[in-house]
Amino acid sequence: MGDGTVTLRDMTAAVSPARAYRRLSVEERRRQLLDAALSLFAHRAPDEVSLDDVAEAAGVSRPLVYRYFPGGKQQLYEAALRTAAEELEQCFAEPQDGPLTRRLGRALDRYLAFVDEHDAGFSALLQGGSVVETSRTTAIVDRVRRSALAHILSHMDLGEAPGPRLRTTVRMWVTAVEAASLIWLDEGKQPPLDELRDLLVEQFVAQLAAAAGRDPQTAEVVRDALALESPDGPVGELARRVLPVVADAARMVAGPAPGGGAH
Amino acid sequence: MGDGTVTLRDMTAAVSPARAYRRLSVEERRRQLLDAALSLFAHRAPDEVSLDDVAEAAGVSRPLVYRYFPGGKQQLYEAALRTAAEELEQCFAEPQDGPLTRRLGRALDRYLAFVDEHDAGFSALLQGGSVVETSRTTAIVDRVRRSALAHILSHMDLGEAPGPRLRTTVRMWVTAVEAASLIWLDEGKQPPLDELRDLLVEQFVAQLAAAAGRDPQTAEVVRDALALESPDGPVGELARRVLPVVADAARMVAGPAPGGGAH
Repeated sequence: MGDGTVTLRDMTAAVSPARAYRRLSVEERRRQLLDAALSLFAHRAPDEVSLDDVAEAAGVSRPLVYRYFPGGKQQLYEAALRTAAEELEQCFAEPQDGPLTRRLGRALDRYLAFVDEHDAGFSALLQGGSVVETSRTTAIVDRVRRSALAHILSHMDLGEAPGPRLRTTVRMWVTAVEAASLIWLDEGKQPPLDELRDLLVEQFVAQLAAAAGRDPQTAEVVRDALALESPDGPVGELARRVLPVVADAARMVAGPAPGGGAH
Repeated sequence: MGDGTVTLRDMTAAVSPARAYRRLSVEERRRQLLDAALSLFAHRAPDEVSLDDVAEAAGVSRPLVYRYFPGGKQQLYEAALRTAAEELEQCFAEPQDGPLTRRLGRALDRYLAFVDEHDAGFSALLQGGSVVETSRTTAIVDRVRRSALAHILSHMDLGEAPGPRLRTTVRMWVTAVEAASLIWLDEGKQPPLDELRDLLVEQFVAQLAAAAGRDPQTAEVVRDALALESPDGPVGELARRVLPVVADAARMVAGPAPGGGAH
């Protein structure tokens, strides 16, 4: 297995002649192996990717892969997963400017493009039960979820730390987005991504609005957010589409008189 | 390991003397071992439960546990999980009578009581990364999710098969309930279960209402469901609480004139 130290000579000796036209630095080589692994893990379940596949995809020998990743497939998978997680976290970064739904929509576009690009690997990872799934891979996935939560909360102008109700609502939505991504892959990538994005933004608005009824902090967030929305934005469209459907509920708004009058 | 056949003599020989006061049938013994396993797996992560623990909890010898479960802990865990899954699926059964939110609330009460009772095991299973997690355990968990979906859809008076938009919306909510359960355990079982249940019912209403804006089938379901609600039920309460918060959005309902008039 070696001590993990990699010399240029090691590398050159191990590289298959066909593609050994250029000497890569250790960092470049590592990155090249990771990229090869990531593109394989993206489109196949990890159980269906062998180290030979990775070596072949990178145009290097199997021993070279082991020299960089002495822990073998498990280590390579975790490293590829960490790379993917960092890429995913970068999707969440969005300037704090304009209506919240537009910011959310842009971040979702990037996230969903990532899901589209890493389809099989994304499913395999999140559906669990893989032999390469460990508490470490679970921790990496969990960090991405926490990052999504933190990014979303950072766009809310909160006077104080986010309370459990607001946090729970946002975390529930983050999980629902994950579920929707898996369902989308499961249904052969239907509906089109634009529609899925709009649907997820609308679910966000609906979930936050419902939670606002129970939590003053969430209510404040909703009021602030609404002030930035325009009538032709997603919230206006949602309101115009949904109100006719729930018009019947209007009779409930007056509600029972204190003491329970009949309606 | 044997061939899995268990005779009464085998069992009596292997039972520890302290509790061998009664001869159990094969089925009773199997059930007793499963119950012992389930109560251990409920409150500890599977990695922290040994076969010795199970034998001790059931008051039998380790070889007897192996005679019933020759596959050892993995087999026992899967059998216990299947038992738990069946119990969980029974929580979902609810007469098709009265407002939908009340039916949903009752089923949620039973589901959340189950989560409360199996806390550590529930977290460990759904957070993944356990050494006893396999594609089979994942399939069991997935069957429970599908059962929840089927139960909910069976309460909707659908003229035709549920379309992808309605199914996706309900599946997203089912996943959000799972996430909320994990968050609830993670937050030291706060807020009280009654409040969590109400919050989840309200999220269901909000998610379905938002989806109704895009999908005629969902809109039909929402209209039918609203007709069964009463002003002092969860929907009326939700409407009264949320409307004041989103009153600002009213200006958006008129929306842009066709062709995009200014507002």
